[in-house]
Amino acid sequence: MYDIIIIGAGPAGLTSALYALRANKNVLILEAKCYGGQIIDSSKIENYPGIELISGFEFATNLYNQVKKLGGNIIYEKVIHINEDKTVVTNKNEYKAKAIIIATGVQSRRLNVDNEQKFIGHGVSYCATCDGNFYKNKIVAVVGGGNTALEDAIYLSNIAKKIYVIHRRNIFSGDAKYIEELENKTNVDFIFNSNVVNLNGKDYLESIDIQHENKQIETINIDGLFIAIGKIPDNNMFENVVDLDEFGYIKTTDGLHTSTPGIYVAGDTKAKFLRQLTTAVSDGSLASTMAIKEMN
Amino acid sequence: MYDIIIIGAGPAGLTSALYALRANKNVLILEAKCYGGQIIDSSKIENYPGIELISGFEFATNLYNQVKKLGGNIIYEKVIHINEDKTVVTNKNEYKAKAIIIATGVQSRRLNVDNEQKFIGHGVSYCATCDGNFYKNKIVAVVGGGNTALEDAIYLSNIAKKIYVIHRRNIFSGDAKYIEELENKTNVDFIFNSNVVNLNGKDYLESIDIQHENKQIETINIDGLFIAIGKIPDNNMFENVVDLDEFGYIKTTDGLHTSTPGIYVAGDTKAKFLRQLTTAVSDGSLASTMAIKEMN
Repeated sequence: MYDIIIIGAGPAGLTSALYALRANKNVLILEAKCYGGQIIDSSKIENYPGIELISGFEFATNLYNQVKKLGGNIIYEKVIHINEDKTVVTNKNEYKAKAIIIATGVQSRRLNVDNEQKFIGHGVSYCATCDGNFYKNKIVAVVGGGNTALEDAIYLSNIAKKIYVIHRRNIFSGDAKYIEELENKTNVDFIFNSNVVNLNGKDYLESIDIQHENKQIETINIDGLFIAIGKIPDNNMFENVVDLDEFGYIKTTDGLHTSTPGIYVAGDTKAKFLRQLTTAVSDGSLASTMAIKEMN
Repeated sequence: MYDIIIIGAGPAGLTSALYALRANKNVLILEAKCYGGQIIDSSKIENYPGIELISGFEFATNLYNQVKKLGGNIIYEKVIHINEDKTVVTNKNEYKAKAIIIATGVQSRRLNVDNEQKFIGHGVSYCATCDGNFYKNKIVAVVGGGNTALEDAIYLSNIAKKIYVIHRRNIFSGDAKYIEELENKTNVDFIFNSNVVNLNGKDYLESIDIQHENKQIETINIDGLFIAIGKIPDNNMFENVVDLDEFGYIKTTDGLHTSTPGIYVAGDTKAKFLRQLTTAVSDGSLASTMAIKEMN
């Protein structure tokens, strides 16, 4: 019997562990892949307060070491199912706790083109707020047509010299307000009915090939590609104990509690406005502190 | 005319600046005293994710340098008044912006006994969640009788060997649930009708003198003193544009917006559940991102 089982060893999960271990709680961390979560794809983090420059892997390793030093332990098993009585069933075992913190994160939807993985952190990004500042006075493209893509384009239009917004349909699905704002920008071009089919470059992204409706291929020189075609939370396995929103994120009341007492959620897999390292670690400390306070 | 005026250069305010500057916004930071806020009183921070050990001053300086490097500038003036039209009046000047972020923090109420300031970070703490872990198997005292003091005592009872809860009245004002929980702990002693009148020690706190109702002085050897007699937000100057809760903290809707559009709040001065570095930097990034998004 554990005090707290934390599902996921990204920044939110590891911060939950840090806070629970410092409160002398008996903690189990379950992780399906490797520690660190999405952040390990970031080669350069400059917007985490207190650290001028760090790689995502280095950040995750520092946090992992903080948790290890307090006696924290990660068991690498995939969670299959959790129950209202705080039983956690993995692919190998069954565990029980007084409280559960779900911190499973999200995946950014990939374009699924060649070289995409290779250029992540080297010209390809899934987060304008995170990486936009690296493209001051440069040329970037945003792929997508929903609100996230349009907001990213607006955000980038104040930083980059030139922004292409590339969408596979002939009309954006995002809000008219954002479309109008982008239309009034002199440095933003829309490219409709087009798909990104290839990423080119040596060590860094240098250009992309886009295929138009007429099947013609055009090559555009860019410095950065922001892919904003959706995020994929993976919360179906928790649906029996927590409420999900229309996009599959876990809903909270007052930002903390799920629909089952004793089950908390932290990090990107939660329905929320901003997904950053700052908000992930805040969620982790908050969920853990609340779990500790309420477990008696 | 600025894009964003940030009032307060603690972790929340400086993080707001970091995010706004990275979005190429024109930012003014106003600070009445010195940068860093309350955290500069912490000699040892071990619960900030990604940094194993750092002093509060070092943390604040790192963050300050991040902001400086992006061209951020602090003007050291005291804000007297702000208006709905986003005018900020200081003791010396008047400034105007499209958005304002209030990040003025809180002060912990002091005991006002000799040596209190000297021992901060050397045996005296105002935050059990922050510093409790430094007192594993040690003897600590908590001063106070409200929910914060009782929660701190419960938190510490799982870490420290022995906890004294010292209260100046003959009954706690906190919830019966917490009192009952503490009564069931074998390592917690209550000392009623008593005031802490002296702190003793060389470089670190070693003992405290408490004065009982009969005026007798008793010396108790302790390793740590947690002072939980209240926090003092200082938001009266903002009352004309933001709603305050019964304790003087700024109320938000959805955790972000104050009662006036374009005026946001971040950090400890906000009504919220947990006041930590993690939550301050999360607030800063969130308030700034929302201000950027909504200012057009």
